[in-house]
Amino acid sequence: MQSFEINKTDLLRIKTALEGDDAELEKVLQGYHASEIAILFEKLPQEAKERIINILPTDVASEVISEMAEEHHPEELLVNLHPEKRSEIVEELDYDDATDIISQLDEEQQHEILKDIDQEDASSIRALLSYDEDTAGGLMNSDIIKVNINLNKKGALDEIIHQSEEMEELYTIYVVDDLDTLMGILSIKTVIKARADARVNDLVQTNFVYVKADVDQEEVARLISQYNLTSIPVVNDDMKLLGRVTVDDIIDVMEEENTEDILKISGVSEDEELSGNWQDAVKSRLPWLVINLGTAFLAASIIRNFDSTVAKLSIISAYMTIIAGMGGNAATQALAVTVRRISLSDLTDKQAYNTVLKEFLVGMINGGANGLIVFIVAFFYDANPMLGLVLFLAMTGNLIIAGLTGASIPLILKRIGVDPAVASSIIITTFTDCIGFLLPLWLATKLLLHQ
Amino acid sequence: MQSFEINKTDLLRIKTALEGDDAELEKVLQGYHASEIAILFEKLPQEAKERIINILPTDVASEVISEMAEEHHPEELLVNLHPEKRSEIVEELDYDDATDIISQLDEEQQHEILKDIDQEDASSIRALLSYDEDTAGGLMNSDIIKVNINLNKKGALDEIIHQSEEMEELYTIYVVDDLDTLMGILSIKTVIKARADARVNDLVQTNFVYVKADVDQEEVARLISQYNLTSIPVVNDDMKLLGRVTVDDIIDVMEEENTEDILKISGVSEDEELSGNWQDAVKSRLPWLVINLGTAFLAASIIRNFDSTVAKLSIISAYMTIIAGMGGNAATQALAVTVRRISLSDLTDKQAYNTVLKEFLVGMINGGANGLIVFIVAFFYDANPMLGLVLFLAMTGNLIIAGLTGASIPLILKRIGVDPAVASSIIITTFTDCIGFLLPLWLATKLLLHQ
Repeated sequence: MQSFEINKTDLLRIKTALEGDDAELEKVLQGYHASEIAILFEKLPQEAKERIINILPTDVASEVISEMAEEHHPEELLVNLHPEKRSEIVEELDYDDATDIISQLDEEQQHEILKDIDQEDASSIRALLSYDEDTAGGLMNSDIIKVNINLNKKGALDEIIHQSEEMEELYTIYVVDDLDTLMGILSIKTVIKARADARVNDLVQTNFVYVKADVDQEEVARLISQYNLTSIPVVNDDMKLLGRVTVDDIIDVMEEENTEDILKISGVSEDEELSGNWQDAVKSRLPWLVINLGTAFLAASIIRNFDSTVAKLSIISAYMTIIAGMGGNAATQALAVTVRRISLSDLTDKQAYNTVLKEFLVGMINGGANGLIVFIVAFFYDANPMLGLVLFLAMTGNLIIAGLTGASIPLILKRIGVDPAVASSIIITTFTDCIGFLLPLWLATKLLLHQ
Repeated sequence: MQSFEINKTDLLRIKTALEGDDAELEKVLQGYHASEIAILFEKLPQEAKERIINILPTDVASEVISEMAEEHHPEELLVNLHPEKRSEIVEELDYDDATDIISQLDEEQQHEILKDIDQEDASSIRALLSYDEDTAGGLMNSDIIKVNINLNKKGALDEIIHQSEEMEELYTIYVVDDLDTLMGILSIKTVIKARADARVNDLVQTNFVYVKADVDQEEVARLISQYNLTSIPVVNDDMKLLGRVTVDDIIDVMEEENTEDILKISGVSEDEELSGNWQDAVKSRLPWLVINLGTAFLAASIIRNFDSTVAKLSIISAYMTIIAGMGGNAATQALAVTVRRISLSDLTDKQAYNTVLKEFLVGMINGGANGLIVFIVAFFYDANPMLGLVLFLAMTGNLIIAGLTGASIPLILKRIGVDPAVASSIIITTFTDCIGFLLPLWLATKLLLHQ
C-alpha cells in the first residue's frame, strides 16, 4: 500500500459523485478511509464538505473531522452543520480531538456547541479546554479504561469489556484505588492469563511511567520514545488519574516539532503554516529579515572602515565575499549538528567541551583545505602569492571561528534558557560575516599594502 | 516524571557500586529501567558494561542492549560476552533488534553468534538480515500473533494467549489462511466480546492497511501516522505475512529521518553521526564546502567583471554584501517552508504553482521593505539618493529571485527525482549570491557611473 495523496482520479470521482444523488455519493464514499476523505476535503468547496459529512455515518463523519489538519479548519465545518448532526458528531469524537477542534472557536460558539451535547461529555471537554494545548493535559484523552485495585479477575475483565465498548484501541489498562489515585498499570494479556482467583492487586505493575498534566508535549514525546510506550497516563499533583496520551498523538507532535525545528533554524517563525497565505508569510519572516539587515550593516561597516584598501586593491572585494560565505556555510554545518544533538538529549559539561573542541579541529582542517584551494587560485590566476597567503590565513581563521561559534553559541543559549534553534543562526552569521570581512581586509592592508 | 538524562548523581552511584561486590551492584541496578541503564552505558568503560550485562537478569540485559544507540556500538558489547550469556541474550532479543545489532558485525562474527543460538531464532534473524535496513522488511519484527481464519472463538483465544507468552505488547492480531496469506486483522477486544460460537471468519476485519517488505521506511512511517496505527503488517508479493512494524520502531525512524532532514538542508552528509569524531565530520562536510567554494568563485567572478566600478565606487562593495546576504536569508526561509511541505505530502501542479506565486509576492514585499531601509541609510548616511535607488532596486530584485528559486528549485528537484533537501540550498545560494552581486554592481555602473 501507498500512503494516500491528493490526486486527480479520486478528486474527479468525488466531484462527479457530488453531481449525482445522495445514494450514488454514499456508494462512492464507501470506497474511502476516513483519513483519505479528510485529505480530499482540502480540495472541495465548503458546501460539498457539509453535504458529505451529512451523508456519512456519524462514526465515519467524526473520524473525517478529527483527521482534518488544523490549517484546513475542521471547526468551521462543524459550526455550520445542523445542530443535531453536529451534536452527534461531537459526542462521537474522542474528547481530545473534540477539544482541539472546539478550542479554535470563540467562547460563544464553544458554548453553543457544548450546551447541546450530553452533559457528561460536555464537562469532560470543558475540563480539557482548560489545559494549554502544548502540554500533556492538552494532548490527553480522558477516554481510558481503569479498574479498581480491589477487583478480582472476573470483575476486572467485565469492567474492561464494559469500558472498552466505545474505544478503538485498548492500549494499557490503569489501576486506581477508591480515590482514583493511580496505583499502576495492567496489560490485558496479564488479566486473560491470570488464575481465576487472582486479584488486580496481585497483577498490577507498580513500576510505571507517568506525567503531570502541565508537562510540555516535547517531554511527553521523549518519554514515550525512551520507554517504548504506546500510551502514558496523565495525573494531577495528587496522583489522581486524569487521562492518557496515546502514541498516535505523539506522532503528530513529533511531526509538528520537527517542522518547527527546521523553520526556526531557517529564520521562519514557528507559527507560520506551511500552506498559509503570503500575508502570513510576510508577517512571519519580515521581522527576522530586518534583524538580519541590522547585523548585515554591522558587517558592512567593517568593509567601510577599509575603504582605501578596497579602492587600491579592488580584487580583495571579490575574495572577501568568498571567505565570508564559506564561513557561513561551515557555521551552518556545525550549528545543525549541535542543535540537533541538543534537541535529542542534554549534554554533560564534558560532552559540551568535546563538541566545541571537535568543531575547532574540523574548522581548522576544512579551513586549511579550502584556504589551500584559494591560495592556488590566487597564485596561478592572479599571480600573487602574497594575496594567496592572506586568503589562506583568512579562510582558515574564519572557518575556525565558524566551528567554534557554530558549536558553542547553541550550547550557551541552551544553558541560559534561550531556544538554541531560533537565535543561533543570526548570531553565528554575524560572527562569520564580520570575521570573514575583517580578516582578509586587515591582513591585506598589513601584508600587501604595508599600511 | 522527567525523561532520563545522564547526570552526575546516577553515574556516581553506579561507579561506586562498580567498586563493590556483585550483590551490591545488582541492588543498585534494580533501581533503574533498562533504557536508563542503556543511557548510563554511554559513560561507562567497556569492562564495566560487560560486568553489568553479566549481572543483570537476561531479559533486562537484552533490553539494555536493544536500547543502546547504534553509535554506542551494542554489537561490540555483545561480541565480547561469554558465548553462553550471549546466546541467552540474543534469543531473548526481539528479532528486529537482534538483526539491527548483528548486521553491524562482519560475516564471520555474525556466523559465530548465530550458530550458537536456537536454530529457529537463527533462521528468522538470517531472513531479516537479507532486507535493506531502511525498508519495511528491515524494520519488521517476525514476533507476531497470527490466528487461522477457520478457528472458533475458544481456539483463537487459546492461540492468542499461547503466542503472547513471550511478547511484551499485544498490538494487533493477524488472521491468515492455511497458506499463511494475510486475510485481515482482529483486535483482542473483538475476540473477548464475541459470542462463544463465533468464528474468526465472522470477526475478521478485512479492510486493513499493509506494506510490502521493500517499501521505504519513510513511507511506512507516513502510513502509520496517516491511519493512526499501532502496527502495520508486512507481506511479500504473494500477500504472505512476513512480520509487522510497530509504532515504537516508527518513532525511532521519525527521529532519524528528521535528523537527516536538518543535516541535509544544512549541507552535512546524512550519514554523519551527531556524536561522531572530527575525522568523520571532516569527511562528511568537506566535499560540500568544496562544492560551495566552486560556486562562490562563480559569484566572485561577477565582482571581478565590475573591477573598475568597485575601484571607483568602493562603497558599493559594502552594500553588495548586504544585498547578497539578505537574498541568502530570504531564500533559506522560502526553501525551509517548501522542503518541509514537500516532505509531509506531495503537491499537485496547482499547489506547486500557488507556492511559487506566493513566494514571489513575499519576496517582492520583503524585498521592498528591506530595500526601503537601505534606501534611507544611503540617502541620509551617504547623502546619495541615486545610490539609494540602486540599492532599493537591487534588494527588491534579489529577494524576488530568492523567493522564486527557494520555492521552485526543490519542487523541480522533487519532480526529477533528486532529494530536494540535499541539492536545493547550494543551487539557491549560488543564485542569490550571483544576482546579489550582479544587480547592485550593474545598476551602479549604469545609473551612478553612467558607463
